[in-house]
Amino acid sequence: MSAPTVQTVETISGGVATPKGFRAAGISAGIKARAGALDLALLVSDQPATAAAVFTTNLAQAAPVTVSREHLARSGGVTRAVVINSGCANACTGEAGLRDAKTMTTETAQLVGCPVEHVLVASTGVIGVALPMDKIQKGLPAAFQALGTNRGSLAAQAIMTTDPFPKEAAARVGINGRDISIGGMAKGAGMIEPMMATMLGFVTTDAGVPRPLLERALREVVNETFNAITVDGDSSTNDCVMILANGASGVTVDDSSYDAFVDALRAVCLRLALGIVRGGEGATKLVTVNVSGATSPAEARKAAKAIANSLLVKTAIHGGDPNWGRLIAVAGRAGVGFDLNRAQVMIGPIVLFKDGRPYDEAAPEAASYLKNTDIAITVDLGVGTASSTVWTCDLSAEYVRINAEYRT
Amino acid sequence: MSAPTVQTVETISGGVATPKGFRAAGISAGIKARAGALDLALLVSDQPATAAAVFTTNLAQAAPVTVSREHLARSGGVTRAVVINSGCANACTGEAGLRDAKTMTTETAQLVGCPVEHVLVASTGVIGVALPMDKIQKGLPAAFQALGTNRGSLAAQAIMTTDPFPKEAAARVGINGRDISIGGMAKGAGMIEPMMATMLGFVTTDAGVPRPLLERALREVVNETFNAITVDGDSSTNDCVMILANGASGVTVDDSSYDAFVDALRAVCLRLALGIVRGGEGATKLVTVNVSGATSPAEARKAAKAIANSLLVKTAIHGGDPNWGRLIAVAGRAGVGFDLNRAQVMIGPIVLFKDGRPYDEAAPEAASYLKNTDIAITVDLGVGTASSTVWTCDLSAEYVRINAEYRT
Repeated sequence: MSAPTVQTVETISGGVATPKGFRAAGISAGIKARAGALDLALLVSDQPATAAAVFTTNLAQAAPVTVSREHLARSGGVTRAVVINSGCANACTGEAGLRDAKTMTTETAQLVGCPVEHVLVASTGVIGVALPMDKIQKGLPAAFQALGTNRGSLAAQAIMTTDPFPKEAAARVGINGRDISIGGMAKGAGMIEPMMATMLGFVTTDAGVPRPLLERALREVVNETFNAITVDGDSSTNDCVMILANGASGVTVDDSSYDAFVDALRAVCLRLALGIVRGGEGATKLVTVNVSGATSPAEARKAAKAIANSLLVKTAIHGGDPNWGRLIAVAGRAGVGFDLNRAQVMIGPIVLFKDGRPYDEAAPEAASYLKNTDIAITVDLGVGTASSTVWTCDLSAEYVRINAEYRT
Repeated sequence: MSAPTVQTVETISGGVATPKGFRAAGISAGIKARAGALDLALLVSDQPATAAAVFTTNLAQAAPVTVSREHLARSGGVTRAVVINSGCANACTGEAGLRDAKTMTTETAQLVGCPVEHVLVASTGVIGVALPMDKIQKGLPAAFQALGTNRGSLAAQAIMTTDPFPKEAAARVGINGRDISIGGMAKGAGMIEPMMATMLGFVTTDAGVPRPLLERALREVVNETFNAITVDGDSSTNDCVMILANGASGVTVDDSSYDAFVDALRAVCLRLALGIVRGGEGATKLVTVNVSGATSPAEARKAAKAIANSLLVKTAIHGGDPNWGRLIAVAGRAGVGFDLNRAQVMIGPIVLFKDGRPYDEAAPEAASYLKNTDIAITVDLGVGTASSTVWTCDLSAEYVRINAEYRT
């Protein structure tokens, strides 16, 4: 028996149907108003997959979230298929909404030939509107017929709402001398025809992963990726990230290969998450917010989130203004340890505030740096050694236009 | 000895120089770039006044905040004068900034003829820039010469930064058969030449008020007024509200007249606070956010603040969209008790969500209501009996334009 060999993670093109034993489809069922728009996605594993998921913490939880939670609990984390529609969130729809979400899983289970609890469901779109079940019931057999190993990108398109582009990612890593793949798709943060639910993520892998390891890996990676992004600080009623591990590669992840698996999973999820930020409503820049010098990782994250959600910071970056005073002001009110005399602010590699005083002579250089599309800002709180990174986008007048559009 | 008589609060025109024994001035000292712009204000009580103040909780506290805190502590809450400049916040300016703030109080004390600790100081404007002390030192004698009982509105103009209009308010109330007056001025929430400190409020009264009662009244009223407004969710390095009570009316407030005094103080502070919201950057609407059905007042306030700061809510209101789904989604993620099946959402008097289901047939009526300039939204969390009210404004593309302007 050879010693375990852990290889470097290789980013590859592809999506949810890239790992072995997964097929996907994306079709137009007529749920969205625009004729021909893809709005129904189906993801099927040829064999039962181990599944884990994280769901929105919003107390106004949508019907598909309730049903998927129940199914995961009843199946013990075994999943064959995920059915997803865009154009309608099936949120705040009462008992009728729950029935509709269940019907989506029942009919998918019949097509796939599996127990109903082996099907998960997700919806995204307008809140408070009933699903057009006639269209979904006609669409499901068509989606099932359309399933293919080369249809991952159609599925990624079918889950889009206001997203300006589809988000797909895949990675490969060698474990014990054999390759496993991880693929994913996500839809983005924002509101389309206003009243949208926001973030959905779906990840597949042909590695076999015992459920406790899969759940631990997903929690760990989501915390560093999907939970570390913000577009507008609002969390939706429908958010979820699901992962299906079907073992089709013949490789099973264990403690010795866990780190390699997590590295590959992180690469996929980070690319999807950053795609959501780049595609944020009205976004023109991707902003990496680093906070260091905190008393704990939680305080670092709290300060980084406060900076990333500050309208004043986001508009300054949009305007290319190296406005370090706003960064200091947010750090000071973030509710975390902070020492003005030991704090430091950098925009890109340029120090603008240090030792309790401004370095405004560097402002023109910082302004020039801010013309880039990808921007990093770093705030050291000056009180400890912990750090955290979150990602956000700038705030543009276009964001306001998108979200102020009249719905009724 | 007659029984105490408490009368109704009467709103009157006026400001900080309306109560007896106060004089004010507002002059142009050349601190602001625009020639002739008023930027130095002085407020003097003819006799020592009892003073109380609340300051920003931001840990990046500006030099004038530090100095005013010290002076209040050293004087035991006795104040003769307040000196205020706009155009420069004197924040993040290190030791030099502290010296400058102290110099402002020393020179004012010499002019007024009082101990230095009887002078308070406030600054508002760009963060991280040194005060032009030559201009301030030339301006102070001119401001002192200009003091008058009819110059309150000039002082209110001299503390403005991005404010589209000055904020003044005054009220009168009878206590034990004699009138006392309360006057105030405030400057608003936003950013002018970006990097502004935001809110300042100054209140005067010719009532005599023992310091413990004055501090209690200020805390109580600020919590319901200045602390219940939000424009962009960012708190500044320079925020403060100060009150001076000089007793010139010959009436002293005691426990029996405390409620009448607080009612009048609340009337003044609420008008100033709502003025700040109406004058918020890019604001076109004043929005009253009522949250009821909470398990505690603190939870009600937390949910109301979350709704008032939600970009999605603020843009929907700007667009006149009766988007109750966004209100539910924010309530659900606000971190407070919430029951979707017992929650209720009203826009104005119109119910849009109740008993777990939408009332979308009322949407056109709600859309019509949203064309008003003053708007109320009410969210009942469905879990208790506590409530809270906060005030905010809408978010417009103009806000982004103002705050994205290039500073360097």
